[in-house]
Amino acid sequence: MLKTNRVAAGLVVVAWLGLGSAGWAQTGATTPAEAARAWTGAHRVELVQQFSEFLSIPNVAADPEGLRRNAAFLIQQLEQRGVAAQLLTLPGSPSVVYGEIQTPGAEHTIVFYAHYDGQPVTASEWQTPPFTPTLKTVDGEQRIYARSAGDDKAAIFAQLTALDALRAAKIPLRANIRFVWEGEEEAGSPHLETILEAHRELVHGDVLLVCDGPVDQSGAQTVVFGARGDTHLEVTVYGPQHGLHSGHYGNWAPNPALELAQLLAGMKDATGRVLIPHFYDGVAPLSAMEKEALQRAPKNDAMLMQAFWLGHVETADGPLLEAINQPSLNINGMSSGQTGAHAANVIPPTATADLDLRLVVGIDWKVQAQRVIDYVRSQGYFVVDTEPTREMLLAHPLVARVVRDEASYNAVRTPMDLPMAQEVIAAVRGARGNVVLLPTMGGSVPLGAMERAAGTRTITVPIANYDDNQHAANENLRLKNLWEGTETMAGLLEMR
Amino acid sequence: MLKTNRVAAGLVVVAWLGLGSAGWAQTGATTPAEAARAWTGAHRVELVQQFSEFLSIPNVAADPEGLRRNAAFLIQQLEQRGVAAQLLTLPGSPSVVYGEIQTPGAEHTIVFYAHYDGQPVTASEWQTPPFTPTLKTVDGEQRIYARSAGDDKAAIFAQLTALDALRAAKIPLRANIRFVWEGEEEAGSPHLETILEAHRELVHGDVLLVCDGPVDQSGAQTVVFGARGDTHLEVTVYGPQHGLHSGHYGNWAPNPALELAQLLAGMKDATGRVLIPHFYDGVAPLSAMEKEALQRAPKNDAMLMQAFWLGHVETADGPLLEAINQPSLNINGMSSGQTGAHAANVIPPTATADLDLRLVVGIDWKVQAQRVIDYVRSQGYFVVDTEPTREMLLAHPLVARVVRDEASYNAVRTPMDLPMAQEVIAAVRGARGNVVLLPTMGGSVPLGAMERAAGTRTITVPIANYDDNQHAANENLRLKNLWEGTETMAGLLEMR
Repeated sequence: MLKTNRVAAGLVVVAWLGLGSAGWAQTGATTPAEAARAWTGAHRVELVQQFSEFLSIPNVAADPEGLRRNAAFLIQQLEQRGVAAQLLTLPGSPSVVYGEIQTPGAEHTIVFYAHYDGQPVTASEWQTPPFTPTLKTVDGEQRIYARSAGDDKAAIFAQLTALDALRAAKIPLRANIRFVWEGEEEAGSPHLETILEAHRELVHGDVLLVCDGPVDQSGAQTVVFGARGDTHLEVTVYGPQHGLHSGHYGNWAPNPALELAQLLAGMKDATGRVLIPHFYDGVAPLSAMEKEALQRAPKNDAMLMQAFWLGHVETADGPLLEAINQPSLNINGMSSGQTGAHAANVIPPTATADLDLRLVVGIDWKVQAQRVIDYVRSQGYFVVDTEPTREMLLAHPLVARVVRDEASYNAVRTPMDLPMAQEVIAAVRGARGNVVLLPTMGGSVPLGAMERAAGTRTITVPIANYDDNQHAANENLRLKNLWEGTETMAGLLEMR
Repeated sequence: MLKTNRVAAGLVVVAWLGLGSAGWAQTGATTPAEAARAWTGAHRVELVQQFSEFLSIPNVAADPEGLRRNAAFLIQQLEQRGVAAQLLTLPGSPSVVYGEIQTPGAEHTIVFYAHYDGQPVTASEWQTPPFTPTLKTVDGEQRIYARSAGDDKAAIFAQLTALDALRAAKIPLRANIRFVWEGEEEAGSPHLETILEAHRELVHGDVLLVCDGPVDQSGAQTVVFGARGDTHLEVTVYGPQHGLHSGHYGNWAPNPALELAQLLAGMKDATGRVLIPHFYDGVAPLSAMEKEALQRAPKNDAMLMQAFWLGHVETADGPLLEAINQPSLNINGMSSGQTGAHAANVIPPTATADLDLRLVVGIDWKVQAQRVIDYVRSQGYFVVDTEPTREMLLAHPLVARVVRDEASYNAVRTPMDLPMAQEVIAAVRGARGNVVLLPTMGGSVPLGAMERAAGTRTITVPIANYDDNQHAANENLRLKNLWEGTETMAGLLEMR
């Protein structure tokens, strides 16, 4: 059962400005979480309007002007709160929005990372337009639908709102705070490290809190100590130089769709085990504390199979929480000729698959990409990385073009027993009570680049609901996650 | 080297009308072929303009109004030549254009079949718009580019032009002539048999000449005694109910693109032999005369591999001319998620392949489709023919939706030694000299439906160049094929 209301974005600016300048009514709260609860409880309608205004600014890589507007909006939000703000820029790349709060007497500096860009949208697949934030009531719970509602504008908005809540409750900050909000995460953060390194003195801290991704599927607040790395390969195989009539030349001219199918089919067995030689070589084992955390974590597999209509799952790497501590190979997309209403009786000239390789600690992305390329070669393909010439195609029975994605990065995992890790766990437990601890997040964040540039370890504190359709059509955020996430952020902002 | 000229279609109507009414200048020719040569040699510019006018009328199934305009245009062309013309109609289907010439004292009736509809177009793939006929000079030869330039408006236009040429040379017809021009061939002719049966007395004849498809790749005039049948299956396999983040759920949630790849991969071996059980069962062997014709036919394989940039071909069924006497399985299209610029880090919800099955004499399309469905089931799939429900997907590890194409038909082959077959061969040889005889055309034409409805056998006489990009973007006709094809049609029109 869905109830739909467009959010009236036109009303937003005045309310938001009002909060930033003179709206600090005291709430009487004594803990950061209470302060957040009191603040969000008193301002729900305005906060949804403000969040909608943020979500209505398009934020895809294909729209650099939209990304610029997002960055300008965030600079304004920081400055309204008295936070020193600036854009960290590099030509040809969306800017990093940087904010800084110097706290007198602080001994520690805590850096909050999030990103304001979103995955590409295919508008036709959305029930409501991706940049027209829309409230719906789903199974009795309110959700807001828009690109980046969950991934990752929610985290930025929760941080800003937690700041307001702490001020309203007159709860002082104890650490120096830095905000690092990226605009190129969904493109693989190709320039983040360069930008951060150029401003090392600004972004250095005692811990970098990565506020991105979903919480555990059980709904409990989660703290994650690492993330898988990510790289991509685009594989194209070749049939006839142009589409040929599949009657006149079928069972004589080779069909690239079939050849691609045969190439891909051999990459995994029926249990999901990747058959590419050396694919699992080098995986760093989990520590005893990490294994224990996994054992304590909720077991959501059966619930998720129901939620996703899955009659089976891959079992080679174990249950979900164990599987994401292994490297993965996925097909994000596959295309050859046309299907459906546009299908024609043609032997298509090419067939293409986009592969997604997730990495874990111990496996370098270039090594893993090369293993796949070596596998393609071992299947009889002449491998090139640019469009093959007529001469190449005539000289080799099988030709594959494999294009590597240079915007790739490796996995990172912070040991849970570091003192700063224990302090973060304590702050989140203080704010939220029951907390799930996970060694690795399945999704990827460029933690390594941040660690190198900021000179510190990262810990990930997500707030979005797991079923937020992240990266897909109809992305959404459960409002309850926004309110609870603000409590979590308040607890972290108030750390020593 | 290409030279491009848009054809000035605005000039067309007057010239064409002029020919139809009072333009019968005598050419002094004594044979049908000489008459055609003299006529087309004297009227090249006007004829190209007239053909362009015909090609500029859109003729795809998605545009019923365009198909109606084509039919009305052809009725007008027939009537201008004094041919009794009418539309044979069935609600919900494009009309058959029917023309009739009664020849006093004639003992035989010859039916000329062709089709005026074309394959769907993806305009973005065309170098010039598909319905803006454009002349280009390619390797010193003029070609006209437009949808259906080769398949199959060329044949209709050659028949009309041959009629004009014979009249200009005062060469009388000797047989009764029927024209049956279909508008639904590219959709699999689902209504042709019904329409023809309802008008059996009109379309009955001693032979039905199917003027469709390309001549042999050597360029020689070809007479073909049958065509493969055709059926399609659309296969969809299912992953998660909606796109899932390939980081968070990769190597746990099953990937439908990979499952489809594995299903398709097992359908053929590396030589192109179809591995689906019983796929070749029942194939009717070729007769001695048919085998001899194949041996005499040009061997074009090496030339075609160069032309199509093919470093290898499927060899299981032998050289091309032997292969097309075997059933085939091809993938016309394959899709899952998105590739290229629109690719996202998603485990796609579905993956789909459109399969094309060509049939030869001895194999019924329903039997062949069932063999593929049985194979899918044997690979562990629960097979449905409508969208599976949540309950189905949860109850079965693997679910495939397989949709059969009811607009399918079987192969047909007319024995070369029938008296009427020998007469057709003689007429074409008389007009063109060297003629290639082939038992089977690789492409499909609904010959069986025509034979049942017209009560006679079919023989196929194509005129288009093999490299006409039939069914694909940038379809074209080599003008030389139009002029020579007109000579062939003149020879056939003048048969006893």
